[in-house]
Amino acid sequence: MKIYFAASIRGGRNDKELYLGIIQVLSKFGTVLTEHIGSQDLTRLGETKDDTYIRLRDIEWITEGNIFVAEVTNPSLGVGYEIREAELQQKSILCLYRQIEGQKVSAMITGSNAVTLKEYQNIADVEDIVRQFIQRVKTA
Amino acid sequence: MKIYFAASIRGGRNDKELYLGIIQVLSKFGTVLTEHIGSQDLTRLGETKDDTYIRLRDIEWITEGNIFVAEVTNPSLGVGYEIREAELQQKSILCLYRQIEGQKVSAMITGSNAVTLKEYQNIADVEDIVRQFIQRVKTA
Repeated sequence: MKIYFAASIRGGRNDKELYLGIIQVLSKFGTVLTEHIGSQDLTRLGETKDDTYIRLRDIEWITEGNIFVAEVTNPSLGVGYEIREAELQQKSILCLYRQIEGQKVSAMITGSNAVTLKEYQNIADVEDIVRQFIQRVKTA
Repeated sequence: MKIYFAASIRGGRNDKELYLGIIQVLSKFGTVLTEHIGSQDLTRLGETKDDTYIRLRDIEWITEGNIFVAEVTNPSLGVGYEIREAELQQKSILCLYRQIEGQKVSAMITGSNAVTLKEYQNIADVEDIVRQFIQRVKTA
């Protein structure tokens, strides 16, 4: 199984350790195409590659992935953009978020039937959620 | 001319006064379908309407709009999602941002040929940018 994982880069890297943990969980279930998102050296300024290249590569990776997983606690233009792309490609989409006081996930995501949106509190939760999601995708 | 304007709501409302100013500028050129984004009463928790309704309404408004304008300085899942929607609907897209030290706009946007990305510093800049953009759209 190939997994596309989306999380904030230029939107902010406060949760980069958490992203690494999620990638480690996802790696138990398949190949994560976007492993660089967990890199602790990747800053808010993003990759040094050309932006046109990055965009096309990411869209191709979304196509290549069997499932699409996003961490959506932190607002991010790129993650929102990619979720719409994944929807239009009719991918199986899992969005993970932590409940933070005074914050709500965008209505574009909470209001979509194509997205499985799950709250989690820690990495153990993520593993359970991902296992159930993949089981459901496989038997669908 | 009908104008769809996208800016951060649940991503954060720090720039809500600026959004109101941009809407006032856009109103000189046409009808802004999303005037509520400039409301000073609209908080980060968003509209009280049902999220499924909000999502479908926004997608319909993007279709109805002759042009699509987004403020992209603040990371926002919804704005990113709507930019991809507008691209796929082949709308004329203008993204406005302020340069902030240590920040960069997502590669999904900077790397897209379908987006006109313009830096601005104040509302007077916005008026010039919008005028030129609309002129170009009309003569295209």
